[in-house]
Amino acid sequence: MTDLSPVLDRADQNLPSSLDNLFELLRIKSISTDPDYKVECRKAAEWLVAYLNSLGFTASVRDTPGHPMVVAHHDAGGADAPHVLFYGHYDVQPVDPIELWDSDPFAPEIKDMGNGRKILTGRGTSDDKGQLMTFVEAVRAYKETRGTLPVRITILFEGEEESGSPSLKPFLEANAAELKADFALVCDTGMWDGETPAISAGLRGLVGEEIIITAADRDLHSGVFGGAAANPIHILTDILAGLHDETGGVTLSGFYDGVEETPANIKASWEKLGLTAEKFLGEVGLSIPSGEKGRSVMELTWARPTAEVNGITGGYTGAGFKTVIAAKASAKVSFRLVGQQNPAAIRESFRAYVRSKIPADCSVEFHEHGGSPAIQLAYDSPALTKAKTALSSEWPKPAIVIGMGGSIPIVGDFQKMLGMESLLIGFGLSDDRIHSPNEKYELRSYHKGIRSWIRVLDALAG
Amino acid sequence: MTDLSPVLDRADQNLPSSLDNLFELLRIKSISTDPDYKVECRKAAEWLVAYLNSLGFTASVRDTPGHPMVVAHHDAGGADAPHVLFYGHYDVQPVDPIELWDSDPFAPEIKDMGNGRKILTGRGTSDDKGQLMTFVEAVRAYKETRGTLPVRITILFEGEEESGSPSLKPFLEANAAELKADFALVCDTGMWDGETPAISAGLRGLVGEEIIITAADRDLHSGVFGGAAANPIHILTDILAGLHDETGGVTLSGFYDGVEETPANIKASWEKLGLTAEKFLGEVGLSIPSGEKGRSVMELTWARPTAEVNGITGGYTGAGFKTVIAAKASAKVSFRLVGQQNPAAIRESFRAYVRSKIPADCSVEFHEHGGSPAIQLAYDSPALTKAKTALSSEWPKPAIVIGMGGSIPIVGDFQKMLGMESLLIGFGLSDDRIHSPNEKYELRSYHKGIRSWIRVLDALAG
Repeated sequence: MTDLSPVLDRADQNLPSSLDNLFELLRIKSISTDPDYKVECRKAAEWLVAYLNSLGFTASVRDTPGHPMVVAHHDAGGADAPHVLFYGHYDVQPVDPIELWDSDPFAPEIKDMGNGRKILTGRGTSDDKGQLMTFVEAVRAYKETRGTLPVRITILFEGEEESGSPSLKPFLEANAAELKADFALVCDTGMWDGETPAISAGLRGLVGEEIIITAADRDLHSGVFGGAAANPIHILTDILAGLHDETGGVTLSGFYDGVEETPANIKASWEKLGLTAEKFLGEVGLSIPSGEKGRSVMELTWARPTAEVNGITGGYTGAGFKTVIAAKASAKVSFRLVGQQNPAAIRESFRAYVRSKIPADCSVEFHEHGGSPAIQLAYDSPALTKAKTALSSEWPKPAIVIGMGGSIPIVGDFQKMLGMESLLIGFGLSDDRIHSPNEKYELRSYHKGIRSWIRVLDALAG
Repeated sequence: MTDLSPVLDRADQNLPSSLDNLFELLRIKSISTDPDYKVECRKAAEWLVAYLNSLGFTASVRDTPGHPMVVAHHDAGGADAPHVLFYGHYDVQPVDPIELWDSDPFAPEIKDMGNGRKILTGRGTSDDKGQLMTFVEAVRAYKETRGTLPVRITILFEGEEESGSPSLKPFLEANAAELKADFALVCDTGMWDGETPAISAGLRGLVGEEIIITAADRDLHSGVFGGAAANPIHILTDILAGLHDETGGVTLSGFYDGVEETPANIKASWEKLGLTAEKFLGEVGLSIPSGEKGRSVMELTWARPTAEVNGITGGYTGAGFKTVIAAKASAKVSFRLVGQQNPAAIRESFRAYVRSKIPADCSVEFHEHGGSPAIQLAYDSPALTKAKTALSSEWPKPAIVIGMGGSIPIVGDFQKMLGMESLLIGFGLSDDRIHSPNEKYELRSYHKGIRSWIRVLDALAG
């Protein structure tokens, strides 16, 4: 690794113009869910293409049935440098309710919050225009200083992330050869806190199932039939209650196949974060961890699989009371997966369990609602280790490797369709109010985010 | 007992005019739920009062905040004759969907069905104008033949039975002294089958409870919180699944206090009816009795208590899928009671059980939805025995004493407010389509119903 000071200094000097660039992009009202803003979405894509071309990328707007993609390529200085795919999205959430904004969401400002803290206000500052521009401005500073880049870079900017990414999979499929890199960098996540950068190494997978149990061929009067006729709500509650044992574990046969214990050093680093159950759950009015006993909330939400009932309905649910025995009862159940758990096997195990509980004169219907395996980067992968070290040298506290409880579809798509892993690095904070009025991004996140990417890109080349 | 033949013969001779009388009453559109028919309801009450006065009753229309009551009194020939209160209702169900009727619901007809079977068509033929008129016409035949009545009779006709009887309790309370008799005769039920009359001796009671469980103070993302945050649907399904043990029994502490086994001879008479589980449940698409194991469907629905979940809801129940952990989940649960089970004690036992299952950081709310004890006539009470013998001499097959799975509020009200038991005797058949288009009453039910009451009244005097 060479001395990065000149590049970092350049980024510092560039900051005013880097902000100007970001603000130009922020002023474009690229709301992807609202057809009225279709032209604005294209404008944002075109702005990015023009800017990337000015930095020496070969960039183009690529049409899709929805909003266009931006794809850009830039070679590295060294022939054996790794090739990374950087992903971000230029579309933003709608701004309703507009009356709750303190300032125009599309007229970004720098606000001085006192004590040296400044924030950037406006829709997209944090999600995701501000974040993706940290990367672009890092590339610019590097290029301006060194005349070249440490790694080969392909950029993919999407314009439909906030509306379910309908064009993404077909686009990846059609352009797999062009987009395939050694690994991906995804900048759409946050830091652990304002001092501590984070890399997400695990993303839980998901299996969604809906079950509909039918007993009698009509709703029955519970006076006439109660005690003799099967009640599908009883069958359903019995099934759902049986999903967990007394230790909070999931009872399905083979459920824990492919689940590995988190390495002790990772667990120890999580413990050091000081996120107690009281703190984590206190924010939503709870205090006692449910689920598997004897594990921290970080472990429970990042590294352990779950079975959750997301919805249940049956019989009379209106006001008052009706002494009915329902004909049908249904539930939506999801499983969060970790490690090597196999979505298809878990779905089959669940269905077999449910079928075993259905009386011979009743029936059950299953509806599949998505299934994706967990993403788990090796905690000791070279790229992860390099990025961690690079981030640790930029921020006051060392970077930590965390898990994420939810799924980020793009990461699964990259893995499945392009055969590459992703490093999730971002500089958002939990109070950035993404998707809400008064979205903001810390100026410090933007500035040190740019510096962070310079360090990460340089480290990845080494 | 004297020779009843002249009275029965008189009823036979009266049949054409008895039908004319019934048809006059049937033509009055006394739909109690529809304010447009308020005048018609009063007209029906006035018609009954005029007719009862013509038979020698002291009858009057009695105003209530809703539709009026009809109250009528007639002394018996003998001073020590028992005093009975006869109850029926003159209001009828709406007729929608009118297009499904084969003939005008308020233009009753006698239809010849071949093989000597004739039916009376129209709204109210079976529920309950036809039934109440069997009693009135029996009184008429008796009076015309003997010049007097075998028992002292008070008649109470209600005009709000089909709309929840809002005025009934206040009226009973205000007129308790006037209405109190030795026991009540209620004519709003059916026969076992076309050959076999039935007396209902048991009516299950009911306790209704709604529980609402609250966990977090908002809906949570199951990716972020799943595995750590309490899921109220899990708590709820665990509670509900725990209500029954493996033998189908209810697990609540003290639940079976006051539940007695049905006498062997009664069970034997039920077994003889040949109502198998396959036959009873087959009509609604089921075949296997649920609930307590080793008991017949008659026992299960007439003589055993139950716990049934009548409704359940929580989380996302719309189309598709949402990976949410709900803040709340709720269920409506009812208990059917028999024997001496105490509604208040059972409600308290249920609440204590539920509370014991709620984690310390979650909460539960209870809403009471009605509670009434079971009604159980002594299977060997003199009045029951007399009525049974009387009915058995009129019909091809001996009368049977059955239970009823549901509650008939009036019977509980008579017991609680007037301190008297009820004999439930009626001549409806299960295919009478009450509350539906093409309601009918068998001419045979009407004719032999009148003859039955003559025999029953005479027997009760003995």
